[in-house]
Amino acid sequence: MLVFCTPHQFVESICKQLQGKVNPNAKAISLIKGMEVKPDGPVMLSKLITKHLGIDCSVLMGANIANEVAMEQFSEATVGYKADTSIAKSWVQAFATPYFHVAAIKDVEGVELCGTLKNVVAIAAGFVDGLGMGNNTKAAIMRIGLKEMIGFSKLLFPTVSDATFFESCGVADLITTCFGGRNRKVAEAYARNGGKRSFDELEAELLGGQKLQGVLTAGEVFQVLKARNWEKKFPLFATVHKIAIGHLPPSTIVDYDNESAQKLHRNPSVGVIG
Amino acid sequence: MLVFCTPHQFVESICKQLQGKVNPNAKAISLIKGMEVKPDGPVMLSKLITKHLGIDCSVLMGANIANEVAMEQFSEATVGYKADTSIAKSWVQAFATPYFHVAAIKDVEGVELCGTLKNVVAIAAGFVDGLGMGNNTKAAIMRIGLKEMIGFSKLLFPTVSDATFFESCGVADLITTCFGGRNRKVAEAYARNGGKRSFDELEAELLGGQKLQGVLTAGEVFQVLKARNWEKKFPLFATVHKIAIGHLPPSTIVDYDNESAQKLHRNPSVGVIG
Repeated sequence: MLVFCTPHQFVESICKQLQGKVNPNAKAISLIKGMEVKPDGPVMLSKLITKHLGIDCSVLMGANIANEVAMEQFSEATVGYKADTSIAKSWVQAFATPYFHVAAIKDVEGVELCGTLKNVVAIAAGFVDGLGMGNNTKAAIMRIGLKEMIGFSKLLFPTVSDATFFESCGVADLITTCFGGRNRKVAEAYARNGGKRSFDELEAELLGGQKLQGVLTAGEVFQVLKARNWEKKFPLFATVHKIAIGHLPPSTIVDYDNESAQKLHRNPSVGVIG
Repeated sequence: MLVFCTPHQFVESICKQLQGKVNPNAKAISLIKGMEVKPDGPVMLSKLITKHLGIDCSVLMGANIANEVAMEQFSEATVGYKADTSIAKSWVQAFATPYFHVAAIKDVEGVELCGTLKNVVAIAAGFVDGLGMGNNTKAAIMRIGLKEMIGFSKLLFPTVSDATFFESCGVADLITTCFGGRNRKVAEAYARNGGKRSFDELEAELLGGQKLQGVLTAGEVFQVLKARNWEKKFPLFATVHKIAIGHLPPSTIVDYDNESAQKLHRNPSVGVIG
């Protein structure tokens, strides 16, 4: 059993070092958030691991801030697995404790994209906090972010299931990340400074060496939106990226005019008019 | 156009006073949270209004703390309508402004139950806060609460749609209510006092005359669980009620042993093993 837990830019080089040295019956699991945007489309890290090492790779994501788990406070996580229920069961057994509940769902891509995309929404939530807006606005932005997470995941991988977003990796992790979390914290400071101090500068100052994934992921997501002409379908994701690179002021995070709101609500898959 | 916005215990008597005095072509909308538990099952308030006055009744629910809307901060709401899209459109027109986005979804019961049941989950979230537990635990409890909201709504009304819970009335209002809100506040104080001071006493002290719906709703929900033998299907709802009436200590809100967690996760409608 191989557990991958590194910053996502190192995955490919680690896999290359491991090539030929791994038992083909070994099973891997990835706890890493992010994706590799290749010229022919985005590749999830679990796929990259499978590609390089030729072994099955599940993912583990969820609402679990490490020091709270260490304190044995009740929390949950989600295993996303490909097809083999017995592999899923062995990962659940490996990780679960009486205070740490692990559920498995047959949707690797959905679970992995939850863990990845929530960091982009957390940046948006941080902007709202930094602008001094209230609970209604923050909840609205988180909801719009969740809907873009679902829409984006399903367009990339039609097998992704709505049910995944009701698991710990979905709505629960989104809540945890948008209220605690590094991405929210630095984005709040960025908005409070009116975008005048860069993310890099604030990250160095506030995180003491830790890195945030959200800005990087927003850039990766934006590459996909550009390449596929999806920018208008995902106004929140696109706006987060443009604010983070200084092309828009932080206040534009709530610029949902009626037209774009209606577009969002007219999404036929949910049968909503607005 | 008739807008109902009163404490839910007055609806029936108000309707009786209005009987025979309302144009049969009038359209009603209810902003009220709660349900009437009758001997033959729970009746939603929109249904009660239709029954007494013989007119169509939609509902408006969503994440909108009144003073933030008054400050014109960006927020959202959801209209739940029965069948007639033109009625839905006229309600959206009546309420929407550039900073207050209203979407409509054809699911009166789903939208109304979101507004009603979120208050029970907010009580649970307040207990977690009062016990001094962290973000992971609170997010886990909110997620389990959301799943019980969906499960309960669908068992009562099979027409209720998953998509409703991704609207403002669902996940967004749940977030707003579990982080702000009166129910959370009083439940936090209740747990901090180890259940030794009653909800009535704390409500009078903390809310200055305002009332909380959550404890009342938890009792109504529990009546339904008892009558239909659903108590084991909805451990969070049942536990909230038992804590609120002093039959269990507040700390039991996180007593999700593996067996009950597995039951929850084995819910075949989401295809999850655990």
